[in-house]
Amino acid sequence: MTPGAGNGPSGLFISFEGIDGSGKSTQSRLLAEKYDGALHTREPGGSAGAEEIRALLLTGDPDRWSAETEILLFTAARRDHLEKTIQPALDAGRIVICDRFADSTRVYQGATRGDLRATVDTLHGLMIGREPDLTFIIDMDPETALTRGLARKSGEDRFEDMGLAFQETLRHGFLSLAHAHPDRCILIDGNRDTAAIAAEIAAHVADRARHLADAF
Amino acid sequence: MTPGAGNGPSGLFISFEGIDGSGKSTQSRLLAEKYDGALHTREPGGSAGAEEIRALLLTGDPDRWSAETEILLFTAARRDHLEKTIQPALDAGRIVICDRFADSTRVYQGATRGDLRATVDTLHGLMIGREPDLTFIIDMDPETALTRGLARKSGEDRFEDMGLAFQETLRHGFLSLAHAHPDRCILIDGNRDTAAIAAEIAAHVADRARHLADAF
Ligand SMILES: Nc1ncnc2c1ncn2[C@@H]1O[C@H](COP(=O)(O)OP(=O)(O)OP(=O)(O)O)[C@@H](O)[C@H]1O
Ligand SMILES: Nc1ncnc2c1ncn2[C@@H]1O[C@H](COP(=O)(O)OP(=O)(O)OP(=O)(O)O)[C@@H](O)[C@H]1O
Ligand SMILES: [Mg+2]
Ligand SMILES: [Mg+2]
Repeated sequence: MTPGAGNGPSGLFISFEGIDGSGKSTQSRLLAEKYDGALHTREPGGSAGAEEIRALLLTGDPDRWSAETEILLFTAARRDHLEKTIQPALDAGRIVICDRFADSTRVYQGATRGDLRATVDTLHGLMIGREPDLTFIIDMDPETALTRGLARKSGEDRFEDMGLAFQETLRHGFLSLAHAHPDRCILIDGNRDTAAIAAEIAAHVADRARHLADAF
Repeated sequence: MTPGAGNGPSGLFISFEGIDGSGKSTQSRLLAEKYDGALHTREPGGSAGAEEIRALLLTGDPDRWSAETEILLFTAARRDHLEKTIQPALDAGRIVICDRFADSTRVYQGATRGDLRATVDTLHGLMIGREPDLTFIIDMDPETALTRGLARKSGEDRFEDMGLAFQETLRHGFLSLAHAHPDRCILIDGNRDTAAIAAEIAAHVADRARHLADAF
């Protein structure tokens, strides 16, 4: 199977990105509830195989994988997720809403191992080759987001543990991605209440769906 | 860490390749016993992290990973093995003897998904970038090898289960690799008794070690 090469009807592939605690999970779920038959999924994980790889990545000694091995495992998980979950749903004409996708890998690796940033892109082009149709990048003050995030406790807080300065670096990474890909990325101000953000996102999706409908 | 970029003394990296049951494990162990301080290791696996990835690859439903995901997982395991086990031993000046390495991926993927053969090489160049100094390719009649192999029972016989015609294809894959890389690959006739093969291999290694010593 070649993801993206199907001939059937094609749904809409939407991802949510942003720093830790910016509201990706909250907003992606709210959006999915608005559309009958929408598929909500997340990374890392999102398929049986990818969840097993996720467990290798997110538990155990934080230093047990090098950055290079880590991006290979993330890419393997993403490939499985795309093949088994995302692409079949798109081929069935569904809306797929994904909590994080490849942009997260780009930004986190860019922040921790900038020398691997080009490698991440080459690997993505070679083994994934698919971007979302629409990416919401929720932008907000890292200090507020970090406080939100620390209120929860998921047991998978490796990156959050790296603190505020790191979140500032991530924020700039997401902002520059949004700048580099204005075609698919929409910047959303996350410093507002949940309902206001959800309404703005829903309006963007309705707009994009209308454009798609017009094209047929 | 960049494997292969160390400045200290460097040992000798030797791999064993060949079809299933050709005697790689037998011969690689015999060779390792000949050298004090030699490290014997194997793929997939060979480091704690790589063994965990190996478990994902070799157990469960044979079809649960696509060929693309599989080569990503093999490459992740190989990267970990190289960083954690092989390169540190080479940096300490040791002989590293590895039961299978990247050539196995090349030949098995070439046989099952020829369209991915170039992808395997690109991925290797991008994320591994290291070949053994010396590769023994044990060549033999697949029918005899298959009989040997079936006498054992490892519970990890996915490839062997594919039968004789498949082993013939693999054999030709290994032969053409040997032909393409005469600098590092030495073809060994495996249709002989264990001691005769071991003696020939030991003579080749002694010869290579002498050449290395002369270079200093
Ligand atoms: N607009 C908002 N205002 C206030 N609190 C919010 C808002 N959106 C989400 N929250 C709360 O902030 C916390 C983090 O939200 P959420 O889990 O959606 O963020 P996230 O981006 O998915 O975080 P992570 O990167 O850690 O997965 C949650 O406790 C959530 O209820
Ligand atoms: N030269 C030989 N003559 C006869 N039997 C042999 C010879 N070498 C190995 N064997 C036997 O053949 C079987 C396969 O050998 P071995 O496990 O070393 O092969 P292998 O290449 O490592 O196989 P696999 O690819 O399945 O790991 C073993 O039972 C081993 O004892
Ligand atoms: Mg979340
Ligand atoms: Mg063996």
